[in-house]
Amino acid sequence: MTSITVNLPETAYEIVISPGCLSQLGSQMKKLNVGKKVLVVSNPEIFAVYGDTCLQSLKAAGFEVYHHLIPAGETYKTLQSLEQVYDTALKHHLERSSTLVALGGGVIGDMTGFAAATWLRGVNFVQVPTTLLAMVDASVGGKTGVNHPQGKNLIGAFYQPKLVLIDPNVLKTLPEREFRAGMAEVIKYGVIWDADLFGKLEQAEQIDSFAHIAPELLETILIRSTQAKADVVSQDEKEAGLRAILNYGHTIGHAVESLTHYEQFVHGEAVAIGMVAAGKIATQMGLWTEEEADRQDRLIKKTGLPTTIPAKLDVDAILETLQSDKKVKSGKVRFILPTQIGKVEISDRVTTEIINEVILALR
Amino acid sequence: MTSITVNLPETAYEIVISPGCLSQLGSQMKKLNVGKKVLVVSNPEIFAVYGDTCLQSLKAAGFEVYHHLIPAGETYKTLQSLEQVYDTALKHHLERSSTLVALGGGVIGDMTGFAAATWLRGVNFVQVPTTLLAMVDASVGGKTGVNHPQGKNLIGAFYQPKLVLIDPNVLKTLPEREFRAGMAEVIKYGVIWDADLFGKLEQAEQIDSFAHIAPELLETILIRSTQAKADVVSQDEKEAGLRAILNYGHTIGHAVESLTHYEQFVHGEAVAIGMVAAGKIATQMGLWTEEEADRQDRLIKKTGLPTTIPAKLDVDAILETLQSDKKVKSGKVRFILPTQIGKVEISDRVTTEIINEVILALR
Ligand SMILES: NC(=O)c1ccc[n+]([C@@H]2O[C@H](COP(=O)([O-])OP(=O)(O)OC[C@H]3O[C@@H](n4cnc5c(N)ncnc54)[C@H](O)[C@@H]3O)[C@@H](O)[C@H]2O)c1
Ligand SMILES: NC(=O)c1ccc[n+]([C@@H]2O[C@H](COP(=O)([O-])OP(=O)(O)OC[C@H]3O[C@@H](n4cnc5c(N)ncnc54)[C@H](O)[C@@H]3O)[C@@H](O)[C@H]2O)c1
Ligand SMILES: [Zn+2]
Ligand SMILES: [Zn+2]
Repeated sequence: MTSITVNLPETAYEIVISPGCLSQLGSQMKKLNVGKKVLVVSNPEIFAVYGDTCLQSLKAAGFEVYHHLIPAGETYKTLQSLEQVYDTALKHHLERSSTLVALGGGVIGDMTGFAAATWLRGVNFVQVPTTLLAMVDASVGGKTGVNHPQGKNLIGAFYQPKLVLIDPNVLKTLPEREFRAGMAEVIKYGVIWDADLFGKLEQAEQIDSFAHIAPELLETILIRSTQAKADVVSQDEKEAGLRAILNYGHTIGHAVESLTHYEQFVHGEAVAIGMVAAGKIATQMGLWTEEEADRQDRLIKKTGLPTTIPAKLDVDAILETLQSDKKVKSGKVRFILPTQIGKVEISDRVTTEIINEVILALR
Repeated sequence: MTSITVNLPETAYEIVISPGCLSQLGSQMKKLNVGKKVLVVSNPEIFAVYGDTCLQSLKAAGFEVYHHLIPAGETYKTLQSLEQVYDTALKHHLERSSTLVALGGGVIGDMTGFAAATWLRGVNFVQVPTTLLAMVDASVGGKTGVNHPQGKNLIGAFYQPKLVLIDPNVLKTLPEREFRAGMAEVIKYGVIWDADLFGKLEQAEQIDSFAHIAPELLETILIRSTQAKADVVSQDEKEAGLRAILNYGHTIGHAVESLTHYEQFVHGEAVAIGMVAAGKIATQMGLWTEEEADRQDRLIKKTGLPTTIPAKLDVDAILETLQSDKKVKSGKVRFILPTQIGKVEISDRVTTEIINEVILALR
């Protein structure tokens, strides 16, 4: 069992990583100083497979357990779904010492976290991520929220979990496409923070599915990725500076996601495209070598992730979407650009011409 | 001009108190390190009188100003109203560096604060309270939120303003009943924290309206009350312990408010009744002298505030409502009880019998 500590100014919490640890949810939560009532939030697909293990473990540890299910999918990551979580919390008389447990991917995690942040102005929160993306990214760092009809994650709060419990075994049932999407964020950590992790991914025979990847490598990936995220977040909880580097690949990635109405690509796929684009921008600006950019792109392809922008997307529409992105600061689009594998810089000096050129080159 | 500093672990902010300072909103905000865009949130009644001064001051200081109005009243303190603030924020492309200004009473303040806490996971927030209650209580301390159809303030966040600007002159237009309601919270500070303030209120000829109160006394009241709140909040931002004393009079107060469907009493009136009840519980338990409790009750009466519980309210219904209150901890109702003027203790040892008895005695 590996345990990583996320150290924050006001609080600290553990990320526990261990095959099979889902059945230890109850005993792990007993170590926290939380009340008796627990509301597990999940979706019907995930709950059908892992709900029982979760509830049993909690009951065995003496908790009073309730659950609330939200239909699967990003389209349900809304204020309306949130209201229904509130209704359930009210129905079971949750108190400030009670705990919301998110059992699911990033959609369930973000929404449950926001519900925990805002119900009674904050109840306890535990993350049990079930997708690779949620394990390495969404479950760590305290960003929670829901979508506005006109934009993703526009409504939310910074709110830290009390525990993140990662059981790699649950990835067995994850659709392969979702697994690859999560790998996009893993590759991201390699490029922005951890050259060693990047090297390990390069050396691996296959990394495009749970079935193909060696269990030890998967554990290493989970440990190094969550460690990378924990490192960055500890240094900059509220995204005042450094934390922005986690948005590597997300600037153009988000535009592509949004302009294809979140239908054509899952998040990680769009990030993969965004990383290829950001890499190309960096090389065009002379910040990064073409050789290293190529290594990144090859790794993305080996993972079975897309590397091109759909030709049907209008370049001007992409540029406009970049402008309305919430990462814009006083009107300037901010890019995270690699300078060498394991290192990036934040730049608002990327010209519209370069963006234009790179988008055209990637279609 | 008096300025009180609220010192919090992660942040500090000023409460500026000065007759006429509304017209200095722009120049005061320029001192903060905030972006160009400002969204003023208010209600049509308040905005009709003070909107212009506010907007002009902001524009003169170089801000790009928008406004959003929510109909007056507690019934609009909802997630639905919040959604409309989000829509306006989106329409004007507010950025993380932008600021939401609450121009109004506690309803506008709480809602605007919650919108600021959650839009883009947090934009800047400034409070310009226009009721006495909002000046001395709601605008200081960072509690923000909206109501759930089944309960007040169930949804919210702790989120601190960057500035609180208090102009006593705006109280001229406040309905007298609202003024008296605010005085209930002032009396509260006298009982729980500041015996000197209590004495000043006792000595004053009249304190039941803006027209009757001496301007110097009003300024003293504002300074000492906000200082009391700032002191308590600085020592316990997230209500882990001490902050609970601010709920003096609110336990039974909330029950009375809720059982009369927020129609018969405004908040401060219910708190006045709650203080009388809590005082009586304290004397019954031998914690407080009858003499001091009488002094409290006389001060409440002098202010023109109610001191009895409507006979139509069922005692069992009150007891049940207390149980579902969010201040309940592991099933026990918590009371704040005076031990002498200026001092209280927190108790969960109040028996149902005593509560019963006191409620009957106050009908
Ligand atoms: N908070 C953050 O810091 C952060 C970071 C990145 C992404 N996100 C958010 O995360 C969301 C995306 O999360 P996601 O990629 O996990 O998608 P997701 O939560 O939608 O899950 C993807 C699909 O996989 C299914 N699934 C999940 N776990 C499974 C399992 N073990 N077995 C079988 N099926 C399973 C789900 O039912 C769903 O259909 C987005 O809303 C994004 O905004 C948040
Ligand atoms: N956040 C906190 O710590 C905290 C503390 C106490 C109360 N509250 C909340 O505050 C709310 C009550 O606030 P309130 O008592 O200020 O009521 P309010 O905001 O509803 O205002 C009362 C009425 O006075 C009018 N008004 C306000 N200022 C005026 C002025 N200067 N001239 C003329 N009319 C004016 C308003 O339009 C409204 O009709 C409740 O929702 C309560 O939950 C919050
Ligand atoms: Zn991402
Ligand atoms: Zn109050």
